[in-house]
Amino acid sequence: MSENHSSGVYLNDIPKEQAWERFSQALSSFGLFKALGSEFIELENALGRVTAEPIWARRSSPHYHASAMDGFALHSTETEGVSDRKPKVLEIDRQCVYVDTGDALPDGCDAVLPIELIEQLDDKQTIRIFQAVPPWFNVRPMGEDIVTTELVLPAGHTIRAIDLGAIAASGHAQVSVARKPRVAIIPTGSELVHPQEDPLPGQIPEFNSLMLAGQIESWGGEAQRWPILPDNRESIRTAVLEAALEHDLVMISAGSSAGSEDFTADVVASLGQLLVHGVAVRPGHPVILGVLEHNAGQDEETNNPATAVIGVPGYPVSAALTADIFIQPLLRVWLGLNPLDPPMMDATLTRKLHSTAGDEEHIRVTLGYVSGRWVAAPLSRGAGVITSLVRADGIFVVPAGTQGVQAGAKIQVRTLRTHAELIQTILVLGSHDLTLDIMAQYLAEQSRRLSSNNIGSIGGLVALSRGEAHIAGSHLLDPETGEYNKPYVRRYLPDTPITLMGLVKREQGMIVAPENPKGIREIRDLQRKDVRFVNRQKGSGTRLLFDHHLSTLGIAGEEVRGYTQEEYTHLTVASAVASGKADCGLGIRAAATALKLDFIPLESERYELVFPTGNLDLALLQPLFDLLHDSKFKRAIELLEGYDVSIMGEMISIDP
Amino acid sequence: MSENHSSGVYLNDIPKEQAWERFSQALSSFGLFKALGSEFIELENALGRVTAEPIWARRSSPHYHASAMDGFALHSTETEGVSDRKPKVLEIDRQCVYVDTGDALPDGCDAVLPIELIEQLDDKQTIRIFQAVPPWFNVRPMGEDIVTTELVLPAGHTIRAIDLGAIAASGHAQVSVARKPRVAIIPTGSELVHPQEDPLPGQIPEFNSLMLAGQIESWGGEAQRWPILPDNRESIRTAVLEAALEHDLVMISAGSSAGSEDFTADVVASLGQLLVHGVAVRPGHPVILGVLEHNAGQDEETNNPATAVIGVPGYPVSAALTADIFIQPLLRVWLGLNPLDPPMMDATLTRKLHSTAGDEEHIRVTLGYVSGRWVAAPLSRGAGVITSLVRADGIFVVPAGTQGVQAGAKIQVRTLRTHAELIQTILVLGSHDLTLDIMAQYLAEQSRRLSSNNIGSIGGLVALSRGEAHIAGSHLLDPETGEYNKPYVRRYLPDTPITLMGLVKREQGMIVAPENPKGIREIRDLQRKDVRFVNRQKGSGTRLLFDHHLSTLGIAGEEVRGYTQEEYTHLTVASAVASGKADCGLGIRAAATALKLDFIPLESERYELVFPTGNLDLALLQPLFDLLHDSKFKRAIELLEGYDVSIMGEMISIDP
Repeated sequence: MSENHSSGVYLNDIPKEQAWERFSQALSSFGLFKALGSEFIELENALGRVTAEPIWARRSSPHYHASAMDGFALHSTETEGVSDRKPKVLEIDRQCVYVDTGDALPDGCDAVLPIELIEQLDDKQTIRIFQAVPPWFNVRPMGEDIVTTELVLPAGHTIRAIDLGAIAASGHAQVSVARKPRVAIIPTGSELVHPQEDPLPGQIPEFNSLMLAGQIESWGGEAQRWPILPDNRESIRTAVLEAALEHDLVMISAGSSAGSEDFTADVVASLGQLLVHGVAVRPGHPVILGVLEHNAGQDEETNNPATAVIGVPGYPVSAALTADIFIQPLLRVWLGLNPLDPPMMDATLTRKLHSTAGDEEHIRVTLGYVSGRWVAAPLSRGAGVITSLVRADGIFVVPAGTQGVQAGAKIQVRTLRTHAELIQTILVLGSHDLTLDIMAQYLAEQSRRLSSNNIGSIGGLVALSRGEAHIAGSHLLDPETGEYNKPYVRRYLPDTPITLMGLVKREQGMIVAPENPKGIREIRDLQRKDVRFVNRQKGSGTRLLFDHHLSTLGIAGEEVRGYTQEEYTHLTVASAVASGKADCGLGIRAAATALKLDFIPLESERYELVFPTGNLDLALLQPLFDLLHDSKFKRAIELLEGYDVSIMGEMISIDP
Repeated sequence: MSENHSSGVYLNDIPKEQAWERFSQALSSFGLFKALGSEFIELENALGRVTAEPIWARRSSPHYHASAMDGFALHSTETEGVSDRKPKVLEIDRQCVYVDTGDALPDGCDAVLPIELIEQLDDKQTIRIFQAVPPWFNVRPMGEDIVTTELVLPAGHTIRAIDLGAIAASGHAQVSVARKPRVAIIPTGSELVHPQEDPLPGQIPEFNSLMLAGQIESWGGEAQRWPILPDNRESIRTAVLEAALEHDLVMISAGSSAGSEDFTADVVASLGQLLVHGVAVRPGHPVILGVLEHNAGQDEETNNPATAVIGVPGYPVSAALTADIFIQPLLRVWLGLNPLDPPMMDATLTRKLHSTAGDEEHIRVTLGYVSGRWVAAPLSRGAGVITSLVRADGIFVVPAGTQGVQAGAKIQVRTLRTHAELIQTILVLGSHDLTLDIMAQYLAEQSRRLSSNNIGSIGGLVALSRGEAHIAGSHLLDPETGEYNKPYVRRYLPDTPITLMGLVKREQGMIVAPENPKGIREIRDLQRKDVRFVNRQKGSGTRLLFDHHLSTLGIAGEEVRGYTQEEYTHLTVASAVASGKADCGLGIRAAATALKLDFIPLESERYELVFPTGNLDLALLQPLFDLLHDSKFKRAIELLEGYDVSIMGEMISIDP
């Protein structure tokens, strides 16, 4: 390989189209931007492989004139003039011959009379027939299905189970398929540990190579994972050199940015051509594209003149999207497949998106069909939030240079689930509750997907008023009346008949560390200087409850240390306390129990499902409504501490 | 197993819903109609497997407060009041600590100032900062992605590559997945031979087990294929007994009807319960459903109290549809997956369908988007025509008891290809020509599917007039003017501006056996009593040409032996001659050459593509139009004998 040592690294984001162009042209110059070659394999191993050549029929099917019935083969002229009233007796083996379905038509025969249409006579040597038949009656003529030399399947076709049958029927026991692209994945990073180990703070479980290998495999490639390498230029260089010999593509996971421990660009530049360092795509921008040329003699294993190299960013979402953008199309070229034409859908964006200047951004969204239109709600944009990919129903690409996208805008979303799955998705927005996770599991058995996005109780009512959710989860206490939800529904949804359906009563209280080391007993203790509080976000029911308590006690927010520190769920509040980030937070008992924390109860609040009364008739929601009367479900909820299911299924109608 | 020998076999078609009900209830009574059980596997083997239990997070991700940048960690209070005009110097390791991205936030720190926002001073012991930051600035708080105890994935979820990352991130190195259903496939039939052998007439290559195994595998099961068994009750019985011990399902391929060599029903009845023999579905009706109970002691291998048995019909299309109707749903139950909700599409039926009385019929159709609507054209209904499944874009189910379905009816089609594939399908109806196969291969490289259905030249023009095709292939000679196609276009499409685009000139002639043993020289020879002719179907250009020749010579159709014997393509005509079914047929030279037959030329005819002139602007068709000027494509056609590409791309406009 060439040894033009680069002096250092740089990061120079270019548009992804330009990066792809540069990469594919460099590969082309080595003859590497085309199908990799083929291999002959047995049909029984061919499922899911890609045909490397058109398949032409070597044999007709059937390859002879075959009887289509059990019966007697004869020549149609023998039946001329025969009818019910003019039956005819035929001599077996002279005028007719018994055949089973699939038997070859005997010489001199051109039709088959089914056994049930004739009479077998007692002498066993003759039959009586009662009808005239045309030539080729009940015969499958040779070539009925496939005729020799006919095209059975084109090249570049992914072989399905039924194709196996057709290929075999046309006379082939083997098939020429595209060789699987071989991909090496080298995870680098001194902070990485095997996912089986329990990581210390600062250590990161290495799972990107697992995920990338899964992507390679599902796209038709063959992935080999290297052991984790420390951030050491020489060991990375050695591994890349070794991997390049036997693989079509070497992926170096992490170290692709421009930090002090980022060696990927340097290694690629020192071994071959560093084509691209940095692509203007978020998440994912520190991407490296390069190519390593083999010296003569080194290419015996692969017969490739060169090997492609891709440096993949370390954040998991960035890694997955980088693979999607650069590796999937490359594998398709190598397999002889057409570029993917992903399914798209028009949808309405629920929330305003601010854009990162200059970069194209790939926003993960949930999708749901509400009130006659598809709505797309953005998920977390963090490159480290892999659950945003797991939960995503689609990807919305904000083009580079866009100032932002307004709420309510019509957007084009690349869908990641089938229409059938999406149309059965129940969107529950609003307040977070653990029972929704249990509900999701039960509904999955009823062919419903529960997609719950936590945006706080008031956020849920607003989403409902905008037609962005089927149901809002809400636990909003009105301090003046002591009533839950109803006064807020009147305020946020004044013109719509609304139904409140009881889900659970749940204990709200103060979540503190085990054994309550700071001796916190009541809200007033939060004024102490040694107590760090963690708050919930504005608009959440828990935040309203807390503010209500503060105002009742005449305490200002500023008097509480950590008042501006906001978390979005009960579990992240509990997690903040468990980790020592805070000493106390307000939340439900179940969250404290889950993380083995102490709990000081304050309130038993009413958590209700809120929806337009018209939704009572939606077929989509019936399994959810039924669930509220399901004793197995109730018992599952009661197993979580701090829940009371006595109000489950109670309905309150609120008319405008 | 029980030994209630049945005296014989019967075939009693019942609706498929009733058959399924009987089958599932019998399996339920053995506790066999639920998920089969689970196994713990390493994540690296889990792609495509189905979660057996909900996955709850065992660890938060990140599991500590992590720096989101390379820079200096500090406590946000250190930055109070700092600005560009009021910078501050901090002592390294006392007031701030250097961290890389992903490092744990040191004790006492709650924010990170990125390296590019600070000034490193020469003493190497201090930095200067220029801005105030809030708590948790550039920190990924513990649990940002996943919080311990949170639901990561529900049960019954098919694991994707990104899920592997999320499962590992949440602290699992292994995952509990549904055990793969084990299915034995026993091919039976004395007429069967291995597909590698060259079958004699009456022998059938055994490929149904290959296709069924592929189906099982793509549905998440594990298939084991048995060697071919002859039609012998005892050997089938022994194999079923042996297979039942180690499998959840035993499939017996063929022999499921009620013929003299059909032992499946008898074997099932003798070993266990024969629940269903015959289902009112076409293709597919001789289906057997049963269950074998294990005696105590025999179930050690599987722990199953019983084994399901399915007898699958022998015709390949019947076999594939039987698997689709009964085995796929059973595997989904066993894997803990919800019933499949197949994608459906509304379409307009192109041709009238006559129904088989009483039976539900599964019609394979091609789909295309023409003039703003989806059209569905039925393919061959033969149970032996596996290419009808390979070519099918969708399945239309005609309910039992329907009299028939009219042409133009709005129907619901279950689609077998993605919307993106279907929308890129070019429908060419009309006359068959071998060049269309070559064209299909070239267009596949341009992301277009060419779907050509042979309905004869006049059929193509009629389809065009009804908006059922994008293009018609036509070679219709007008005997009066000697012109091709134009007079017919005027007649069949009087109101539409039409373009004729030249494809090829091709030699039409008489196809005869090698060395022309009957000494056929001219059309007149077809009047000879010893010459059997094979004709093309009415409405085909070749039929018109033949009839034109006959009338010129004053010969009546009845004078030609075989005049009423019709084939639908050039290749099936040639195949009829090659097999000795006929001595002569009219067709193109390429068909004769393909099957190594002799050819007596009669005519050089003009084969043209016919379409509404408006279609010239359809983006869908541009790659096809471009192809007609592609020298590589022209050369590929010239390699076939009997073609002249000089007219390729010539355009003639016909205005109303």
